[in-house]
Amino acid sequence: MKIAILGYGTVGKGLVDMIDSNKEKRNIKIVSILVNNKSKHKDSKYANLITEDVEEVFNKEFDILVELIGGLNPAYEYIKRALESKINVVTANKDMLAEYGDKLVTIAKENNVSLRFEASVGGGIPVLKPLIESLEGNLIKSMYAILNGTTNYILSKMYDENLSYEEVLKEAQELGFAEANPESDVEGYDAARKLSILSTLAYDRRVYWRDFYLEGISRIDMKDIYYAKKLGCKIKLVGKSEISDEKISGYVRPVLVDNDSLLSRVDNEYNIVVLNGNSVGEVSFVGKGAGKEPTGSAAYADVIDILDKRVCNIDSFTKEKIEVEKTINHNCEALLIFKSPKKDEIIDLINDCVYDHRIIDSTKEELAIMISVDSEYEINNILCFINNKGYCKEYRRLLKII
Amino acid sequence: MKIAILGYGTVGKGLVDMIDSNKEKRNIKIVSILVNNKSKHKDSKYANLITEDVEEVFNKEFDILVELIGGLNPAYEYIKRALESKINVVTANKDMLAEYGDKLVTIAKENNVSLRFEASVGGGIPVLKPLIESLEGNLIKSMYAILNGTTNYILSKMYDENLSYEEVLKEAQELGFAEANPESDVEGYDAARKLSILSTLAYDRRVYWRDFYLEGISRIDMKDIYYAKKLGCKIKLVGKSEISDEKISGYVRPVLVDNDSLLSRVDNEYNIVVLNGNSVGEVSFVGKGAGKEPTGSAAYADVIDILDKRVCNIDSFTKEKIEVEKTINHNCEALLIFKSPKKDEIIDLINDCVYDHRIIDSTKEELAIMISVDSEYEINNILCFINNKGYCKEYRRLLKII
Repeated sequence: MKIAILGYGTVGKGLVDMIDSNKEKRNIKIVSILVNNKSKHKDSKYANLITEDVEEVFNKEFDILVELIGGLNPAYEYIKRALESKINVVTANKDMLAEYGDKLVTIAKENNVSLRFEASVGGGIPVLKPLIESLEGNLIKSMYAILNGTTNYILSKMYDENLSYEEVLKEAQELGFAEANPESDVEGYDAARKLSILSTLAYDRRVYWRDFYLEGISRIDMKDIYYAKKLGCKIKLVGKSEISDEKISGYVRPVLVDNDSLLSRVDNEYNIVVLNGNSVGEVSFVGKGAGKEPTGSAAYADVIDILDKRVCNIDSFTKEKIEVEKTINHNCEALLIFKSPKKDEIIDLINDCVYDHRIIDSTKEELAIMISVDSEYEINNILCFINNKGYCKEYRRLLKII
Repeated sequence: MKIAILGYGTVGKGLVDMIDSNKEKRNIKIVSILVNNKSKHKDSKYANLITEDVEEVFNKEFDILVELIGGLNPAYEYIKRALESKINVVTANKDMLAEYGDKLVTIAKENNVSLRFEASVGGGIPVLKPLIESLEGNLIKSMYAILNGTTNYILSKMYDENLSYEEVLKEAQELGFAEANPESDVEGYDAARKLSILSTLAYDRRVYWRDFYLEGISRIDMKDIYYAKKLGCKIKLVGKSEISDEKISGYVRPVLVDNDSLLSRVDNEYNIVVLNGNSVGEVSFVGKGAGKEPTGSAAYADVIDILDKRVCNIDSFTKEKIEVEKTINHNCEALLIFKSPKKDEIIDLINDCVYDHRIIDSTKEELAIMISVDSEYEINNILCFINNKGYCKEYRRLLKII
């Protein structure tokens, strides 16, 4: 089996290491490696295979193209070209799958080759294959997940060390855990892309990432962490989606998770995906969501699947795009935090609107109140009432996973 | 694709329900179902396929035999016969695989057919397939797991409701969660069989279940739970194995697990398997470890894999049996509980022997002390000293997972 690799960064090296350490068991020959800057790799064991010229790669003969350069372009062009040349493709590129998964799966199908992307979601955690193959007979009803290592690291650190978002982000950037422009991570885009890939496969309908309700972690402050602790919870950036009566709803947002839950035990660079199937019940997958070796391990498994001719059904990407509702249409709990002197008025109004509430804190500056309602729509109504009556203009809300 | 099913109890019905609910997607035809007592099933939708005569089953033509009757015999004979007739086999029978897995895998290989057993470990949790396929490139260094739902239910209930082992076992038996003869569950045999299947696949050597150190939960009492709570821990029946320098060690025993750990969040009928790979790091799989639908879901996935011609390498079962060490040969922590009036003497002796200890409780009747040592061998030495000096004849020990 001959493979060409596009990109020789962290994940590329992880994959190559794994091919090397398994060479007695599996005969995988690397024929070409595309890089940006050849001079950086002149001491590499594979220096003779390294090139800056993609034409040099495509001039070689190979069975699998492993795309690890990331981003939309030129990755998309390269993958398309490979598939159209009847070459199988393994990729870790969630941005591209979330954006062009439908097109690429169609091209792969037309050319009767495989397109595989286990490494695109959850790093080293085997999750797409178990979802597609092991849970095939199940109707997946819902899922929730921590899918972004950078934000989970930031939130863990804020919680454990009582540091501010800005302090932890800065430190994470210095350590290389967060990018110089962290937008895609901290605003939840990366998690939403992964959630859309999982949701598309789980619900057998194409779910587009921008259609989820999206809220990042950049506004989480020490006060939120303080309330979370008081409630016996942590704050996690959670992606959740569900299907009910043919309708899909979903979000990526910071939520309160109970200390008793599995989710609360998934800290730092770890990810978790919890799938809820009609037969199997809740199944959870936990592991490192990023990094050289875990992600290399996932890409290697995809290569092996192609080598062993194991096919896998990912047709759902070619299905029609489905509308996504951005609010929760069933029981939900939320912490509302109001900066207002009119506490009594707010409490009275909430008391009239909800069947259950609990005051968490009431200081001169702030009122924190936990409410249980029938849907997220009701929360919006309450906040709208309070705003219209002039009781409070500055508030925050944090849903709790229940 | 035609299948015959041996056994129409809980799991059999779960599988048949799944085949029914997916009939538009997958063309699986049930040709025969073997039962013990036909009259019990006369109102079944499949009454016309149900027989008490195994010859009637084997006289039909089919591609897959699904064995769900359990126990060693006649299950073994039936599976052997099917494989020798070049019929693929799906089974949930961990007792048989732990005992005769080597023979059956050899027969399957000789006849070029599949033998699949995802449902034998962890109920509905996809774990064998991810281990074999998704983590193929990894060297698995160690694993730990909660693999028995009955004991996890008993321990959860003892912990949550402060009930004695005897009370909870009785209740579990009345509710059908524990068998009339609970030995296989409560003595850890069931967990050890599952751990041996996982270990065989993970370490690529045949590991025999009786070679593990085995200790059940029947001697866990309220005092142990009291100490666990005091230490911020729960007690779980954990199976753990590891490979180091070509040596495998392993046990199934009740251990202390920290409340901060994932393991402590896995209660009641839930199971967890944590695999530690050299590249991927720790990956965990959590879900319902038993029951009609979860186990039916796993057996269904195996049927689909055969239908889709996805092959899977389980050669390790045919490898030579490897010796298993029964003690832990690296750092370990343990709680020692002594019933003795000679507390000061015991503390002095422990103080001389270990580099770290902490007195948890010292009452008139009992001394509870947490120690850190370099290997389990040292614990045995300490207990031997104390016994030889006549300081204490009655003691208990509980390792902590670290």
